[in-house]
Amino acid sequence: MKAFAKVRPEPGITQIEADRPHLGHYEVLVKVKVTSVCGTDYHIYRWDEWAQAHIKPPRIIGHEFAGEIVEAAPDVTSHQVGDMVAAESHIACGKCYQCRTGNSHICERLKILGVDVDGSFAEYVKIPEQNAWPIPTEVPIETASILEPLGNAVHAAFAADIAGSDVTIFGCGPVGLSAVGLSTVSGALTVTAIDVKDYRLKLATKMGATKTINSNEKDPVGEIHKDTDGRGAGVVLEMSGNDRAIRDAFRAVRNGGTVILFGLPSKEVPLNIADDLIFKEVHVRGIVGREIFKTWYRLDAVLKSGKLNIHPLITHRMSLNQLDEAMKLVGTGDCGKIVLTP
Amino acid sequence: MKAFAKVRPEPGITQIEADRPHLGHYEVLVKVKVTSVCGTDYHIYRWDEWAQAHIKPPRIIGHEFAGEIVEAAPDVTSHQVGDMVAAESHIACGKCYQCRTGNSHICERLKILGVDVDGSFAEYVKIPEQNAWPIPTEVPIETASILEPLGNAVHAAFAADIAGSDVTIFGCGPVGLSAVGLSTVSGALTVTAIDVKDYRLKLATKMGATKTINSNEKDPVGEIHKDTDGRGAGVVLEMSGNDRAIRDAFRAVRNGGTVILFGLPSKEVPLNIADDLIFKEVHVRGIVGREIFKTWYRLDAVLKSGKLNIHPLITHRMSLNQLDEAMKLVGTGDCGKIVLTP
Amino acid sequence: MKAFAKVRPEPGITQIEADRPHLGHYEVLVKVKVTSVCGTDYHIYRWDEWAQAHIKPPRIIGHEFAGEIVEAAPDVTSHQVGDMVAAESHIACGKCYQCRTGNSHICERLKILGVDVDGSFAEYVKIPEQNAWPIPTEVPIETASILEPLGNAVHAAFAADIAGSDVTIFGCGPVGLSAVGLSTVSGALTVTAIDVKDYRLKLATKMGATKTINSNEKDPVGEIHKDTDGRGAGVVLEMSGNDRAIRDAFRAVRNGGTVILFGLPSKEVPLNIADDLIFKEVHVRGIVGREIFKTWYRLDAVLKSGKLNIHPLITHRMSLNQLDEAMKLVGTGDCGKIVLTP
Amino acid sequence: MKAFAKVRPEPGITQIEADRPHLGHYEVLVKVKVTSVCGTDYHIYRWDEWAQAHIKPPRIIGHEFAGEIVEAAPDVTSHQVGDMVAAESHIACGKCYQCRTGNSHICERLKILGVDVDGSFAEYVKIPEQNAWPIPTEVPIETASILEPLGNAVHAAFAADIAGSDVTIFGCGPVGLSAVGLSTVSGALTVTAIDVKDYRLKLATKMGATKTINSNEKDPVGEIHKDTDGRGAGVVLEMSGNDRAIRDAFRAVRNGGTVILFGLPSKEVPLNIADDLIFKEVHVRGIVGREIFKTWYRLDAVLKSGKLNIHPLITHRMSLNQLDEAMKLVGTGDCGKIVLTP
Repeated sequence: MKAFAKVRPEPGITQIEADRPHLGHYEVLVKVKVTSVCGTDYHIYRWDEWAQAHIKPPRIIGHEFAGEIVEAAPDVTSHQVGDMVAAESHIACGKCYQCRTGNSHICERLKILGVDVDGSFAEYVKIPEQNAWPIPTEVPIETASILEPLGNAVHAAFAADIAGSDVTIFGCGPVGLSAVGLSTVSGALTVTAIDVKDYRLKLATKMGATKTINSNEKDPVGEIHKDTDGRGAGVVLEMSGNDRAIRDAFRAVRNGGTVILFGLPSKEVPLNIADDLIFKEVHVRGIVGREIFKTWYRLDAVLKSGKLNIHPLITHRMSLNQLDEAMKLVGTGDCGKIVLTP
Repeated sequence: MKAFAKVRPEPGITQIEADRPHLGHYEVLVKVKVTSVCGTDYHIYRWDEWAQAHIKPPRIIGHEFAGEIVEAAPDVTSHQVGDMVAAESHIACGKCYQCRTGNSHICERLKILGVDVDGSFAEYVKIPEQNAWPIPTEVPIETASILEPLGNAVHAAFAADIAGSDVTIFGCGPVGLSAVGLSTVSGALTVTAIDVKDYRLKLATKMGATKTINSNEKDPVGEIHKDTDGRGAGVVLEMSGNDRAIRDAFRAVRNGGTVILFGLPSKEVPLNIADDLIFKEVHVRGIVGREIFKTWYRLDAVLKSGKLNIHPLITHRMSLNQLDEAMKLVGTGDCGKIVLTP
Repeated sequence: MKAFAKVRPEPGITQIEADRPHLGHYEVLVKVKVTSVCGTDYHIYRWDEWAQAHIKPPRIIGHEFAGEIVEAAPDVTSHQVGDMVAAESHIACGKCYQCRTGNSHICERLKILGVDVDGSFAEYVKIPEQNAWPIPTEVPIETASILEPLGNAVHAAFAADIAGSDVTIFGCGPVGLSAVGLSTVSGALTVTAIDVKDYRLKLATKMGATKTINSNEKDPVGEIHKDTDGRGAGVVLEMSGNDRAIRDAFRAVRNGGTVILFGLPSKEVPLNIADDLIFKEVHVRGIVGREIFKTWYRLDAVLKSGKLNIHPLITHRMSLNQLDEAMKLVGTGDCGKIVLTP
Repeated sequence: MKAFAKVRPEPGITQIEADRPHLGHYEVLVKVKVTSVCGTDYHIYRWDEWAQAHIKPPRIIGHEFAGEIVEAAPDVTSHQVGDMVAAESHIACGKCYQCRTGNSHICERLKILGVDVDGSFAEYVKIPEQNAWPIPTEVPIETASILEPLGNAVHAAFAADIAGSDVTIFGCGPVGLSAVGLSTVSGALTVTAIDVKDYRLKLATKMGATKTINSNEKDPVGEIHKDTDGRGAGVVLEMSGNDRAIRDAFRAVRNGGTVILFGLPSKEVPLNIADDLIFKEVHVRGIVGREIFKTWYRLDAVLKSGKLNIHPLITHRMSLNQLDEAMKLVGTGDCGKIVLTP
């Protein structure tokens, strides 16, 4: 089959011809219908420090997708051939403390699709049956391909007390934009979106942001305090991973408020712990992945309610053959989510 | 001044001529601009068992209002003459365990305006300065007069995890209707409103209910299970106080779900504790009054956000002189909130 | 093999000769070393209304036990022959909403060992591998046989905010007694234990109760209010299932306090919802089973800490052949936990 | 009266003769019986950067004390002359958002005794009546003088889920030591105490620590992981303010665990946010002061329960005249709490 892989420890991506995956116990083979590009894929493409530390070539990458089950191991009981499914990309061991106490997304022996095992930038991909999530018939296949990153936003946004709060979101990539939309339909009083790209701030407005700030032009912390009678935002979602944004997040939150950390910084970030965390009694929570499958049920329900408009999120549709071009586009920041058809 | 009081221990209400209240320490005198009718007032009017147990005539009743401060005791520091204010009707002692741990709304020595002290069905009413809540200039005086019951709905709805849940609301009086609206703008996936009056169910639809059920015509429990794949509602708000509705609330909620009890039944209610609470691991919380002033800030913000449409709530505007007529109208159930002008 | 079963729909228990269980997928066969008697077993023995509604004879009963794995299906991966294990008695489907959101103990298609499938009053019992819990070597086999009911107490006690609270426990059967011990070592300020049997109140004192009340002799509600400056208990654990105790639980709790309901009443219980739940803003939570496996890890840690003295809990050691005698002893109430050796 | 003040912007402390404070509205005058030394006082004594930024000489310092009310303003209603009281040192405005929503300890216009207004290293000190906390007769005056720092430990320890957790405490000053004791009596499974001073580690053992680590001798992170099957501590209380300890706190906590930040670092601290907060989904909470008065009631109850042995905490008793000597002793770290008699 056709696939795209990191074949050597260097920047770039290579089209290869690979065998169709052979199924092990409890695995299903999915014919990929739509797959989409994540920031993680771009890290691997660029071959930055994080990628060098985590990827062992050769590796087929990609982990956001939707498709049809075309084969199932004999012991599979939850799904059958012909089912349309999306995938939870965190493959948990099922036996560690975290897995056995309802937190398999932070499994002590976690494997990630397209990072630790072969992924979805291919015609076919295999996954454990427990990672397959049936797509409701009313959800279009393109939407289904981005359920995984939408789930990140659901997990992050619902970890704080959004309803009734002034919400500030740093970073308007696809997950940040999704968080803007979710906050809007989950009772946030105001949603302030912050980025350095006007392209993305315009998308944030379409997703429902009540205010946008280009942090290259204005100090977001000053603006937020001005807008909240000097009190600060009740909830801050940090979805950029940017150094300055992370520091600003703690300065923008009000006494007793909550900071959700989701965006991954590439190196250590110095924080003013005394003034910005302790004297303000801030609540902080790191967020990764999706609660399996609480987040998925929640997302399913949000989509069924019809309140969340996700159309502005997908800005580009391309062929999987154009993957290199898609990667370069991610690098410019002038895009929302890019979906690819094999 | 003109006032309406329960003057004898019997049904009815009497117009009287009373002295303007004399201010004590930290009290302010408010000229009532608009006052509205609560179910409690109707209990007192009817002189039912609850009223007989709680009211010592003569007593000027009424506790929902907005008006202008026209006099302030010398030691008042938070407000001044000319301020427009609404009022928290729970007068707390400030010194008991509950008051000193942030729960003054369940003060161990609580007094209620219009029940334990003279109330607002009058030209003037006095309140402690700490019970006065400044009305933002953008909030119309009529809206301000119903902040107190809107606050009940805010306290009840936010006590559960509305965002992302299927919400069922039993009882579509003014507080139930407000809860319908709040759930709608706070991320509820579906809002099912239940009552026995079609008049009120129509108002529920206007407030945003995604489905209404007349429980005289259809079994609400069966409907809710049908609508949730047999699982039950994630959150049930019981705002009716009706015997059957309370029992249905526990049958309608899903395993692990939440039942908020707000409506006051007039007598004991038998519950199937084993099947409906324990085997289902239901969370239950009684709700009374408003968190002082957390609820008020939250309500303030909700109103400022402009998302909550409260217009359908107020169905009748009358003169305070028509109080007897207003009371009879409450008895029919064919009304939302009735506001009165002195 | 030798086993004890309900063979006909009538009171009593019968020794039978049964086949050793045949293993299905992911099942293990356990040779029972110690098994203990639960109140549920006594319900079945007596053949009361609950039993008649839930048991379809013939059925081998019993569900609390510890033993050695003597056979494992070929697809079993978590345990091996020779392992000493206890068992989670709730057999979950693994595929419903509750199972997939971390609440498999309230699975929508739950089966219970010794109720819905054959149980442990036998020489051998089979269980799904996922229900087997390895026994730490430092835990004696006798203790291991009562991990399941100890887990009930852990789940119930930790569902409330025990640390720093005045705790009242209604019902001093084995689970109530365990809750007394757990509250004592988990920072409860006072632990008041209530029962109608002096035998059990003496055990409660041994488990650490700071006060015991025989509710046939004194009004527990009055005592609790007297002991808490009239405020009421912060946490009430209802472990008796007794009608009057359940009503007293709601009268004994303070404003804003928590009532945990665990004991199963045999019929509906009338509650004064207005005065005892709503005006007091009480939090209520039904509790059943154990969180799988959060509760087990927690219990494991409690036992390892060595703080909880469980010795007073086991009051009688008998042969499984004496099951009928053991059942009659449970009926008198003059016992703690009875453990049986096959 | 005799008092000790920072009279010039330079290191040291000076004995002065000052007027007895004149009472304003709602204030009481307390004759100091015992006062104790806090780390904050030592910051001011040393005249470090923090002190230079926060103290405007001349200022009488000190804020931990107990004494007798000898005078009360005419409008005081909660206390009377002759009452023995301790003091909450955070003086809140009572009118801001935080104050009106139950969080006056993080008041937006907070003043601190001995920092922003004159303090307790004197014969007399005045405080608002609402800051006076009556001392139960069974609490010795010496214990009463350290209720304020004990309250810090109560607030910090109860902000996490101590019961049932492996708890690690960095920093064994008086507040850290108190947290060791509180964790021990609140159901912690293990309590590991870490410091660089063996003197303080010995005190930690007396307070109930199950293990102590001198972090100059052993890597605490490695030890903690070894002791928890590689999982990490469920709760980490950072009470040292030390740079390295703060970083270690985040490395020592397990996936999904909680880090409480209480100790104040003197400058920014670089954190590995990706690996140590996000991928581990850590919960973090800053803690300052005491919840007013929830923490005080809780502390009161803990002391009444008799379970917490606070005797090891107070290591030195001196005359207030020896304040300079006491300060130097704090600097060595070879002490627990030092109490002073005027």
